[in-house]
Amino acid sequence: MRAVVIDGKGAFRLEQRADPVAGPGLVTVRVHAAGLNAADLQQARGDYPAPPGWPADIPGLEIAGEVEQVGAGVTGVSVADRVMALVGGGGHAERIAVPADVLLPVPAGLSWQEAAGFPEAFSTAWDALVVQAGVRAGDRVLVTGAAGGVGTAMVQVAAASGAHVVASARRPELHGRLKELAPAGSTVEVVLPGQEGGLAPYDVVVELVGGEDCLRRVELLRTRGKVLVVGVQGGAVAPLRMFDLMLARAQLIGTTIRGRSPAEKALLAATVRTHVVPLLAEGELRVPVDAAFPLDRCSDAYARLAGPGKFGKVVMLPW
Amino acid sequence: MRAVVIDGKGAFRLEQRADPVAGPGLVTVRVHAAGLNAADLQQARGDYPAPPGWPADIPGLEIAGEVEQVGAGVTGVSVADRVMALVGGGGHAERIAVPADVLLPVPAGLSWQEAAGFPEAFSTAWDALVVQAGVRAGDRVLVTGAAGGVGTAMVQVAAASGAHVVASARRPELHGRLKELAPAGSTVEVVLPGQEGGLAPYDVVVELVGGEDCLRRVELLRTRGKVLVVGVQGGAVAPLRMFDLMLARAQLIGTTIRGRSPAEKALLAATVRTHVVPLLAEGELRVPVDAAFPLDRCSDAYARLAGPGKFGKVVMLPW
Repeated sequence: MRAVVIDGKGAFRLEQRADPVAGPGLVTVRVHAAGLNAADLQQARGDYPAPPGWPADIPGLEIAGEVEQVGAGVTGVSVADRVMALVGGGGHAERIAVPADVLLPVPAGLSWQEAAGFPEAFSTAWDALVVQAGVRAGDRVLVTGAAGGVGTAMVQVAAASGAHVVASARRPELHGRLKELAPAGSTVEVVLPGQEGGLAPYDVVVELVGGEDCLRRVELLRTRGKVLVVGVQGGAVAPLRMFDLMLARAQLIGTTIRGRSPAEKALLAATVRTHVVPLLAEGELRVPVDAAFPLDRCSDAYARLAGPGKFGKVVMLPW
Repeated sequence: MRAVVIDGKGAFRLEQRADPVAGPGLVTVRVHAAGLNAADLQQARGDYPAPPGWPADIPGLEIAGEVEQVGAGVTGVSVADRVMALVGGGGHAERIAVPADVLLPVPAGLSWQEAAGFPEAFSTAWDALVVQAGVRAGDRVLVTGAAGGVGTAMVQVAAASGAHVVASARRPELHGRLKELAPAGSTVEVVLPGQEGGLAPYDVVVELVGGEDCLRRVELLRTRGKVLVVGVQGGAVAPLRMFDLMLARAQLIGTTIRGRSPAEKALLAATVRTHVVPLLAEGELRVPVDAAFPLDRCSDAYARLAGPGKFGKVVMLPW
């Protein structure tokens, strides 16, 4: 099969690799589409290695496709099933072996591109907002970097949970599309970065940007508010004014999914399968796709991911 | 009555003030002893004002003494009861009015000095470690600045909860006394600041020092570990390496008690009355008193509080 490989210099190129085999507990999937994530770029820079058990040099954290082989001991999954999954790496290839217990069903009518953009962004959003921060109806939630793949998922999951959402995004031309993400019955307010204070206070701030000033947003929290630190591409070190944290009795919560144990990932997948996939099937959640590229244009795909002005997910189409 | 007053220049002096009166829901207490806290010094500097309803210019956050008057609607409290309480200010005076619902009984045999050093330190320790961080048997807990009033309480509450405790303290001559704080059946290891990494990882780090490097201790956490930010006298702004927080899926939790609502304070007092005072009565928890000063030596008391080398609480003896 063809796969994107990170070479010794941190560049991406296509190589021929052996097809994976469905060992016990695994299935192999023919990858129709695969989402790109900032973590792919970090991995290429050498500072975010794949966890054990996953291809070390093939990027790609989420896939959608058809089951080709079903390994021993796997039940409830059949050849040709349409599946999607958050994976530990290796998604940017024509085939991948995946533990059966992290598979999610692709709802009828959803395109491969949309399905490929769902697992990482929506698992991250659900886990961070609902499982960890306990967002509930009436909360005020600020999402920074709201126009990206994870940002558009965070906005929707918060709004679907009954929160009042403020989305912050740099490009004014994307603000209208962010407002349209609000599920029926909810509203999303959109502001430029730096204007978030005008709509404070917040119960939850979702940090998807990073940078030197990002922890100043602790000031915008209500008492016992929380900052979810999910993405810091804009700068990974920032000063924290600890009195602000103490006086608000606030929490900073760091989160990632990739380094979790297989059991934790299976648990999260079960939660997403039960609670989030149905909202996707009903159309309450949507996956905005910014751009899609065939596998042989992988460099263009990563360049688009790294560049500005995206709305939603960048995906690759291996098959 | 005589009271310590913060003058316009941030200095402390004794003044004559009117005696408080026990309005509805209040009692007045003749203050036999009152604990000193870093917050008193912050208040004198003007950056930690007293909450509404408490004397604005009389410091003092915890008292022990005898009930003198009982206000309307107060039940279960009688004149001459020996009580202690965490208060919003005004403790460094001969008398104070206190909401009856925050009173704690002073166990038989406990001295006024010990009782005066209990409410703030042990309420803070119990609330942070047990209520907020959920410390439990088998956890590894690091307490920085362990020799101070809150530090000695944190060490004991963590150890009494079944945690393995590592206490960090600058003065080697105090290390033996820290080890002796371990309740029967537990052990406390003691290290110098900077040596905490040798005994990592920790489930909970209690930050009582602050300073430029303090958030580097996020590196010492186990997965899903927590840093409780409780005291930052050594420097209130520090850089946070957000990837460390994300990869450990860790939490920074800021906490203070003073700014909480009266209802929250009553709830915390009820918890302390039920769970912590009995441990004090049984001798499992102890209040080390570093030094005690009469009211007319209040300046010496605050100087001792601000200086190095303390072990446990500094208290004042108004009556």
